[in-house]
Amino acid sequence: MVGGVEGLEKNGNEVKMGNGRTAKLYELLLRLLALALTLVAAILVGVDKQTETVPVVLVDSLPPLNVPVTAKWHYLSAFVYLMVANIIACSYAALSMLLTFTSRGENIILGSMILILDTLMVALLFSGTGAAIAIGLIGYHGNSHVRWQRVCNVFGKFCGQVAASIVVSVIGAVAFILLVVFSALRLHKKSK
Amino acid sequence: MVGGVEGLEKNGNEVKMGNGRTAKLYELLLRLLALALTLVAAILVGVDKQTETVPVVLVDSLPPLNVPVTAKWHYLSAFVYLMVANIIACSYAALSMLLTFTSRGENIILGSMILILDTLMVALLFSGTGAAIAIGLIGYHGNSHVRWQRVCNVFGKFCGQVAASIVVSVIGAVAFILLVVFSALRLHKKSK
Repeated sequence: MVGGVEGLEKNGNEVKMGNGRTAKLYELLLRLLALALTLVAAILVGVDKQTETVPVVLVDSLPPLNVPVTAKWHYLSAFVYLMVANIIACSYAALSMLLTFTSRGENIILGSMILILDTLMVALLFSGTGAAIAIGLIGYHGNSHVRWQRVCNVFGKFCGQVAASIVVSVIGAVAFILLVVFSALRLHKKSK
Repeated sequence: MVGGVEGLEKNGNEVKMGNGRTAKLYELLLRLLALALTLVAAILVGVDKQTETVPVVLVDSLPPLNVPVTAKWHYLSAFVYLMVANIIACSYAALSMLLTFTSRGENIILGSMILILDTLMVALLFSGTGAAIAIGLIGYHGNSHVRWQRVCNVFGKFCGQVAASIVVSVIGAVAFILLVVFSALRLHKKSK
């Protein structure tokens, strides 16, 4: 179906690799993994919401008033960015799968373009997870120097879900790192 | 000095590129740029410190007390991480310059190793800048949902210096992206 790069053909100066189809299969599986992970990470953040009743003291002489307070993912720009980064990476993973699947396995320009975009996805996902981790740490521990109180003692489930999304997102980003290395070695093999 | 990869030599199936030395020069310059940028970024964060007198109301009936408050880079873990990421990237840039400079330009294993490490530097620097930007944005604007007050209205110079470090760091990270692409194309050319 994909053909063209199998068997050990010696054609002039060009030596085609015998494991071309296997390499392509591994790359496709890695892209599928990246797609699934970034999709899960995006969904985990996107559906994250928690409502808690918090006691609020309005007047000292009266008992505290129980007010329902909701934590939503779009309240913090770092989490919005994490979700957007994962959606972009997920869409790109799907597109690059399609391109890898339909290409004849010989296209150096397409290979270089995919390598560049894979590298950009590494940058995008790591900046997103970096941002979310930085905010998440303040959420968990607070920071006394700037007087930012921790909020995860109240919104434990919300914070846990963001943490899960970050972990999945980092694994997705590592998949893209592997794809960069893979693409580079493929480019190298292709041109052998 | 570097020798071996110049002139258009056709040797069996191997075609050596005529512009090997020029490519190496560009790569060295790009590594030097990355080294300089990450060094500047690390220094900008590392020496960042600002003391301001802040009026603090202890008792309502008395006038506010002027207390000197200092902002230091190591008060926020995101800024510590940004500095450490830049120091690692800077050290690696120096090491990889040395390796690129002394290598004979033919070593595919060294080239692949440098490509992998360059990609890791992209991940490291972007996670660092992502974290610092996320915290910096809260510092500039605050966040009413989690009741984190902005602090950059008081520590303007401190925030400005972190922002400068982030900008320089992002340019350094882009230099590493270019190096990844460059390394991949060099690997490809080397094996032609």
